[in-house]
Amino acid sequence: MLAVTILGNNSAVPAFDRHPTSQVVTLGGENFLVDCGEGTQIQMINYKIRRSKISHIFISHLHGDHYFGLVGLINSFSLLSHQQELHVFGPSPLQEIIEMQIRVADTKLCYPLHFHTISGAATLVNNERIEIKCFPTQHRIECYGFSFHEKKKPRKLILESVKENNIPLYFYDNLKNGEDFITSVGEVIKNEWLTIEAPKGKTYAFCADTRYNESMIEHIKDADLIYHETTYLDNFRERATERFHSTTKQAALIAQKAGVKKLLVGHFSSKYDTLEEFEAEAREIFPNTELALEGVTYKV
Amino acid sequence: MLAVTILGNNSAVPAFDRHPTSQVVTLGGENFLVDCGEGTQIQMINYKIRRSKISHIFISHLHGDHYFGLVGLINSFSLLSHQQELHVFGPSPLQEIIEMQIRVADTKLCYPLHFHTISGAATLVNNERIEIKCFPTQHRIECYGFSFHEKKKPRKLILESVKENNIPLYFYDNLKNGEDFITSVGEVIKNEWLTIEAPKGKTYAFCADTRYNESMIEHIKDADLIYHETTYLDNFRERATERFHSTTKQAALIAQKAGVKKLLVGHFSSKYDTLEEFEAEAREIFPNTELALEGVTYKV
Repeated sequence: MLAVTILGNNSAVPAFDRHPTSQVVTLGGENFLVDCGEGTQIQMINYKIRRSKISHIFISHLHGDHYFGLVGLINSFSLLSHQQELHVFGPSPLQEIIEMQIRVADTKLCYPLHFHTISGAATLVNNERIEIKCFPTQHRIECYGFSFHEKKKPRKLILESVKENNIPLYFYDNLKNGEDFITSVGEVIKNEWLTIEAPKGKTYAFCADTRYNESMIEHIKDADLIYHETTYLDNFRERATERFHSTTKQAALIAQKAGVKKLLVGHFSSKYDTLEEFEAEAREIFPNTELALEGVTYKV
Repeated sequence: MLAVTILGNNSAVPAFDRHPTSQVVTLGGENFLVDCGEGTQIQMINYKIRRSKISHIFISHLHGDHYFGLVGLINSFSLLSHQQELHVFGPSPLQEIIEMQIRVADTKLCYPLHFHTISGAATLVNNERIEIKCFPTQHRIECYGFSFHEKKKPRKLILESVKENNIPLYFYDNLKNGEDFITSVGEVIKNEWLTIEAPKGKTYAFCADTRYNESMIEHIKDADLIYHETTYLDNFRERATERFHSTTKQAALIAQKAGVKKLLVGHFSSKYDTLEEFEAEAREIFPNTELALEGVTYKV
């Protein structure tokens, strides 16, 4: 299952009832925190996200609305006697900023904290279940999007056929990996009679802060879900470009060109009190668009 | 008028519904922000504190629950086109921490930001209406309390007597400063016939994080109101001392020994779900105690 829970959907200045960027991505049975604006840990309490379940945090860039809550969260993990390792991925000066604040407070963290500096397009995490990559966006400062790929699961046994054909237990894993079975008398029992294909792994992409940027498309192509910023409605297209942000229709166009299945839009400018128009405008180009609303979990 | 509005009353780990330390002190017609834990700017929105009214911020020490909201607030002031100067007072590495975060974001603030490093017991602000001082507390790292002194106002004219005695207009200011009037024929008209004394200026002290510390008393003596931390109930006296914090009864004893008029208690440990006992215990020693509750303004 792929799920994205929005903790903050606003751009730089917090608005009444809207917080800066942060979201929890659930994929392959794990939770990943993406960006960590001020107040993220309080939002995690509000929306009952168990802090102990987070062991990877990805920071897109060093504008405050995307990371000012990070040092507080790192601190609280320690005060709450978090035990497991924490991995933080972000652009280069992040480590120094965090470590300085830990140092001046004379804090000894009670768990291992690992920083990973990101740069260019790269694979950040790669295990049996999942692959997580970063890719550069076009923003005023160095900024990265993140894509989350659930790996294809092993094939599923058709237990009835497996028993009928007397396949020995030791060969089950080979079946799951797609092998045919050959009996002692040389008879080939085709894998496709014994197993069915597992559903394709899900893919999610967080496109961070960016101006309209087609070079991003290759990194998010065919995703099941993407989150793309829409700081402005489309009549502010010029301002968006100037400030390295996107409009509703620009986000929708990226979603369309990348052939993704669903688009979530967020990072709304504080100048907007209501959000309905964001959805309406984006849907003109990409109908399967939803607003990223705080506290809501979007499941695929 | 002296007023203190509580924006956060919790200790280090945020609890459901309680935020880290921050408060707005209103004295001499000005607002001063004292400490700025994570989420302070959002609390300012929630409680309708006009950010534009703040031009002085005092940070007691560099544990995150007292300052992690500062860089976000400084940033937002700029995004909101704040014009007036902002003065920030705090222990020495604070300036470097904030400036580094502004630098990596490539932010140009649109207003002048002045850092003032504090050290020892000193006067930080001194103008016609108010004097603000800092004093060291006993905490695990360098930490300061702040005292706010409203200056005695000029005497008030008794307009009837002033007219009856034909005091010329040009002499009114001299009367307010306590001078007698001498007529052209040398007759002395006593100031006390013409004016009444203005009420004494109010004094407030924020005692920051500290363990039980009688050396603080001289700095807060006879204050109209003090805020003293009570991280723990009194049965945790040993833990309080170990961790450089105070209990209810220790705070009350300081208030009593300093002869202050009223005590506000706050900085409650997250391990307490309810707060009634804090008030009850402190009142055993110092009856005029109140809990510092978020969103409440305490007026004197």
